[in-house]
Parts: sequence; C-alpha cells; structure tokens
Amino acid sequence: MQIKGFTAAAVKAGIRYQDRLDLGLIFSEVPAVAAGVFTTNKVKAAPLLLDMERLGKGQAQAVLVNSGNANACTGNEGKRMARETSAMVARQLGMDEGLVQVASTGVIGQALDLKPFEEAVPRLVASLAADGFDDVARAIMTTDTVPKSSFRQINIDGTEVSLLAIAKGSGMIMPDMATMLCFLMTDAQIVYPELQAIIRTSVDGTFNRITVDGDTSTNDMVLALANGAAGNRWIDEDNPDGRESFAAAVMAMFKDLALQIVADGEGATKLVTVRVVGARDDEGAMRAAQTIANSSLVKTAFFGEDANWGRIIAALGRSGCYLDPDRVAIYFDEVQMVRDGVGLGDKAEEACSSVLRQDHFTVTVDLQDGSGTAEVYTCDFSLDYVRINADYRS
Amino acid sequence: MQIKGFTAAAVKAGIRYQDRLDLGLIFSEVPAVAAGVFTTNKVKAAPLLLDMERLGKGQAQAVLVNSGNANACTGNEGKRMARETSAMVARQLGMDEGLVQVASTGVIGQALDLKPFEEAVPRLVASLAADGFDDVARAIMTTDTVPKSSFRQINIDGTEVSLLAIAKGSGMIMPDMATMLCFLMTDAQIVYPELQAIIRTSVDGTFNRITVDGDTSTNDMVLALANGAAGNRWIDEDNPDGRESFAAAVMAMFKDLALQIVADGEGATKLVTVRVVGARDDEGAMRAAQTIANSSLVKTAFFGEDANWGRIIAALGRSGCYLDPDRVAIYFDEVQMVRDGVGLGDKAEEACSSVLRQDHFTVTVDLQDGSGTAEVYTCDFSLDYVRINADYRS
Repeated sequence: MQIKGFTAAAVKAGIRYQDRLDLGLIFSEVPAVAAGVFTTNKVKAAPLLLDMERLGKGQAQAVLVNSGNANACTGNEGKRMARETSAMVARQLGMDEGLVQVASTGVIGQALDLKPFEEAVPRLVASLAADGFDDVARAIMTTDTVPKSSFRQINIDGTEVSLLAIAKGSGMIMPDMATMLCFLMTDAQIVYPELQAIIRTSVDGTFNRITVDGDTSTNDMVLALANGAAGNRWIDEDNPDGRESFAAAVMAMFKDLALQIVADGEGATKLVTVRVVGARDDEGAMRAAQTIANSSLVKTAFFGEDANWGRIIAALGRSGCYLDPDRVAIYFDEVQMVRDGVGLGDKAEEACSSVLRQDHFTVTVDLQDGSGTAEVYTCDFSLDYVRINADYRS
Repeated sequence: MQIKGFTAAAVKAGIRYQDRLDLGLIFSEVPAVAAGVFTTNKVKAAPLLLDMERLGKGQAQAVLVNSGNANACTGNEGKRMARETSAMVARQLGMDEGLVQVASTGVIGQALDLKPFEEAVPRLVASLAADGFDDVARAIMTTDTVPKSSFRQINIDGTEVSLLAIAKGSGMIMPDMATMLCFLMTDAQIVYPELQAIIRTSVDGTFNRITVDGDTSTNDMVLALANGAAGNRWIDEDNPDGRESFAAAVMAMFKDLALQIVADGEGATKLVTVRVVGARDDEGAMRAAQTIANSSLVKTAFFGEDANWGRIIAALGRSGCYLDPDRVAIYFDEVQMVRDGVGLGDKAEEACSSVLRQDHFTVTVDLQDGSGTAEVYTCDFSLDYVRINADYRS
C-alpha cells in the first residue's frame, strides 16, 4: 500500500492512553489537489472548522490526525489548539501552515493538551515513510477493532494511477453523514472541481448509507488528496473516460470501507443489507430503509437471530413511506417470509432463521407499489454495544 | 378503584402462555360515550381497524383485551378473528356487537386462535365485578414489570365524578404515538365531541412525549368510556368549568401513566426528563428534545451514569433544530455542565455524576436563542433492553 509522492507515519503520543499509536501524519511531497466532505452536524469540531476554511483553496499537503480526543465543543481554545498543532507540523516540515489539514476523533468536550503534540510531532515527521499508512490506519482507531483500508490501481489513458484510502468508524454512525474519518490519497492528476464532485457523489452512495446507531458525530470528515505524481493525462471535463474510471474506483473503495465500518460497528456481530424495492419513489424507499435499519427493536432481533418480521413491518409503517400494508412482501436473502402483508408461517420462519444465523444477509422489503428502491447497510444491536457505550469514557 | 356502573374481569385463557392473566373485559351497564386515539403507524392491527370503524358512532359498552398476541399483520383472517371474539362477548352479555371494542398486544404476525377465547369468554363474563380493574391491568402486561393505573375524583358542579385509567407499555414506545394501550373509564356525563377533544389533547401532551426506543407499534390505542352514572351536569360547550376540571384530571392521569410507562421501559433503570428551553420556536425545541431522548448513545451513557454531555450536544446538532453551538448551556438537574458550548470541567462533571446516580433526573438544554420549549420523557438504554428484545419471542 504505497502511493507515489506520499509518505506517512504514526507514533504513540500519549494523548489519552499510553502505549498505543494515537497520532498520525500523511504528507505529500508537493501540494496536492484536495477535496473534502464534512459532517452535517450543526455542532462541528474545531479541526473541521479550520479545515473547511483552509480547503477553500482546494489544496493541501499534510494531514495531522489524532485519536483519544475529538477536540469538539472546546470553544475558541479548541480552535487555537487545532491551529497550533498544524503550525507545529508546518514548522517541522518547512511548509505553508495553510496546507495542513487536521482531524481528531475520540471523546467530545475535553480540552486538547498541546504537550503530547510538542513532544511527538518531531518524532512523527522523522518517521515519515512510504509504507507508513498501515500505522496511520491503526492510530485513528477508537472503538474500532480492526484498521480499515482500501487500495486500487486503475489505468487512465495508459498511465497507472493508484488510490489508497484509510478510514475509521464504529459508533456514532449513521447516514448524513456517517461518523467517521476517511483519508484518500492518490497520485492521480485531477482538477479540483472534479475531485470534489466525485468525493461528494461517492460519499452519498456509500458512507451516507450506513448506520450503526443513528447518531451523527461532530467530527466526521472525508478528505481526498491528489498529488499528480502518476503523471496521467489530467482528469477534467475534457477527459470523461478518465473521470469515469477514477470515479468508479473511488465509489468502490468508499463502499468497501463503508461495509468494513458497519461490519466493525460497536458490538456488531452481523452485517445486514436492508433493501427496499417497489416503493412509489426513491425518497420513500430510502426513508423506509433507514427507519428499518435504525430500529433498535429490529436490530436487537437480528442479534437474537430472530426472523421477527413484525418489527420490520412496524418500523416500515412509521417511516413515513407510502405503503399499502396488504401488499408488503419481505424476504431474508432469497427466502420469502411475508406475502401480501401476512406471515408465511412456521416453516418459512425456520428457513429464515437459518439465514439470520449467517454473518451477512440481506433483508428485502417489496412494497409492490412502484419502482422506487434504496439500500442501506446496518448491523445488529448487541449486549456489547451497550457495554461499550456505557463504559466508553471510563 | 371502582367506577359507578362499570365492571371488569380478567382470566387465564392460555392465549400464548399458560397460567397468567391474559384476557380482560371491561363492561359498562349502559352504552357509554366513547372516544379513542389510535396509532399513527400505517400498519394498523386488525382490532384497531375494527374499533375505528365502530367508534364512528361515539359509543361503546364493552372492551375485550388480550395480551400474548397482537393480531397484527394477520390479513383478512385477523380481521375476522377480531370480529368473532367481539361477537362472543356480545352474545354472552346480550348486547349489540357494534358496541364491543377489541384490543390486542403481544407478538406481531401470528394468527389468533379462537379456541382459548371460546373457552374463556363465558368465564370472563361470569367474573365481571366492580373491583376487577386491577386484574385487567395485570392481564394486559407484556414485558411490563408492574401494572399501571391512575385514579382521580373531581367535583363537577357539586357532583362527585370518578375517573380510572389503566395502561400497559414498555417497549416500542415513542412519541407519535407511544406504543401502548390505555383505557379510561369514567362515570362522568360528557358529550362525545368534548370527550374526543380532551382525549386527543391529553394524549399529545403526555403519551406522545415519552420514548423508550423510538419505535411505534401497530397496536397503540387510548380508549375512553364515559357512562354518565355520576349524574353530573353534562360536560359540554355550555359548561366550561366542568370541562376544565375534567380535562385537567385526564391530563394529570395520562401524565401519571406516561411516566409509569417510561419508568417501566424495557430494561430501564432511570427515568429522565429532557427539557429544551430557549429555542427559536416550540417545534425546534421538540425536535431537539426528541432527538436527544432517542439517541442510543445518550441513553447508554445514562445507563453508565456518565455525564457525557458531548453526546447530548452531538444529538442536538443533528436534530435539525436551529442553534448557535457557542451559546448552548446544559444542566443535569440544577448543576450546570456546559456554558457557551464548552464543558465546565472535572468538578462540574463530578457534581453531575452524582445527579446521574439518581433514579430520576432532568437534563435541561438552554439554546439561549428564543422562547421555544419542549419536554420529553425517556429512560436509559441498558443491557437488559437488549436481552429482553433479543429473546422476546423465544
């Protein structure tokens, strides 16, 4: 997992916990074209406010990211901390401070201490290496149990272009936009408007379709850096083929990461695709799919491996999606459980129960009322989810 | 707990479980003025469809209610079963079948078996007694751990009027409208339009403000029967004082029952009032209060007795309510934890933690932006909630 012209590193800075990687740095040898998508939460953490301001130029060269402290709800002091940490990086690297993006994840509402950064940033810069991305993927984990990354190589007009994305996310995950950090590095030559549009579309089709617990964080961000080191023909409006290949790769990588995030949802034991078809329109289908995918009762039934279609139908009925209850069909994978709004009995339920014992399965709800469809990815709701979240700060 | 002219009884019918009260009957000696409010879920259980049709006349004389099976999502067969059980009651009591209301709670999607009803209804009718309401309150419990009732006596123009309400509800509870059954019996003389309006307003102010898990069931209903046996001066548009006394009593009783329901929420260990003040308008305040009260992360933090105001602010930020993050104040009971969007540190958090160790407390969020307010009642989200709901049908 290397990308031409990029280096990365992570160190143990002791920001909250001792003896774990908690501070990462991604560096591009030259200023890269940069695009970002940030949380829709009205309460945005200090680093995001700084990043959004700086990204106005469509350029970035370094990303400093820490776990253990979200630097959210920390007022003007938090904004100052975000600025100071970015200044440390800029000084060490001899670069423009305005090209440093900062990201934080962890506990909300605690002041960020500068000391660990002062001690760690020089070590961090000294450790920058082409193969440092695995360490960064580990450094940004909070309640994640596994690091998450995705890698693709594509061909743009005869030139090989590489893309690498790393992500974290496990709780506070829900569409609009899923609580998470994701950094995409590519050596592609691509103009800013195309990069921004591709990132936006790919986020909508992937990270905005996953849900762990219906909560949206103050710190979500997806950042893409394209440094052009591949030397491919520029991806711009005059290169639709190149644009298409690049966009397809980003969409595939973000979907890959989105599913990794759900599968690693806090306490999750199952990855479930909720698919609604036959709705009057796509909006209704999405509302229905999200309501089902977020229902605590549906999710605890998944955990109990119980084909409790009554809870699915109850969630459907309160979703606001138009439906005729007497037409609804429900399938677990290929096994039909409900026809015309009525359950198909014990034998169907037994067959569905074996589907639910799998780690991955799809619930399909067919409203038989039109051609609207939507797909959302969720996980089950387990005892460990409660354990993790009742104890998280202790 | 007796109401002039009303009798009630409950028996063990073996509808789903053996050896527990699971079938109840409420009977008024004369046809009573009757009003109801039914679930907003688009999927409505068979009994509700029948009741809504029959209540068109504004009259009812008997209510048959069973637990163990919701008779929801059971198609035309379910509607036939609802009708047949009501016919059994009417035959036994020698009354008009159209004056029988039916209610069911329990598992969704399983056919209702008529046999237990055939055997039990004669016993049920034979047991009708003035003091039978406690038994009915027990018979309608599902995952409830305690029966729920509320009793008031008021004076209308010199005449004593009594009101008794019983309710059940513990999971699938959320505003709009909370999943539950509630039956109000009164000997008041009151005209139908006033009774219906008072019930509707009281539901909005009470049951629609509680949430356990954000789910809304297919079987929610509130039914009020007023048989006039008190002989008070009629409560109608020409009796504003009588109307006011009666409405205040109903509101107080429904609030009493609503709080009983939240306190007995599935797995709940704490009853929490979420109060939003200083919002730009009441709608925004309500949206903010509901989002906080439904957040799994906020509720698991309550369970962990963790004054995790960061999760409260994150929920607030995604609620859609207008807010300036730099003005937000948060209090646990009287103890301030957040000022101008920033936490007040370890000492404040310690003080808040002792508030959270209580069984009841209030979270107040002040947006300092206007005069909009809202109050919602919720509970914590515990390991037992998941245990109960992963195993509910087994």
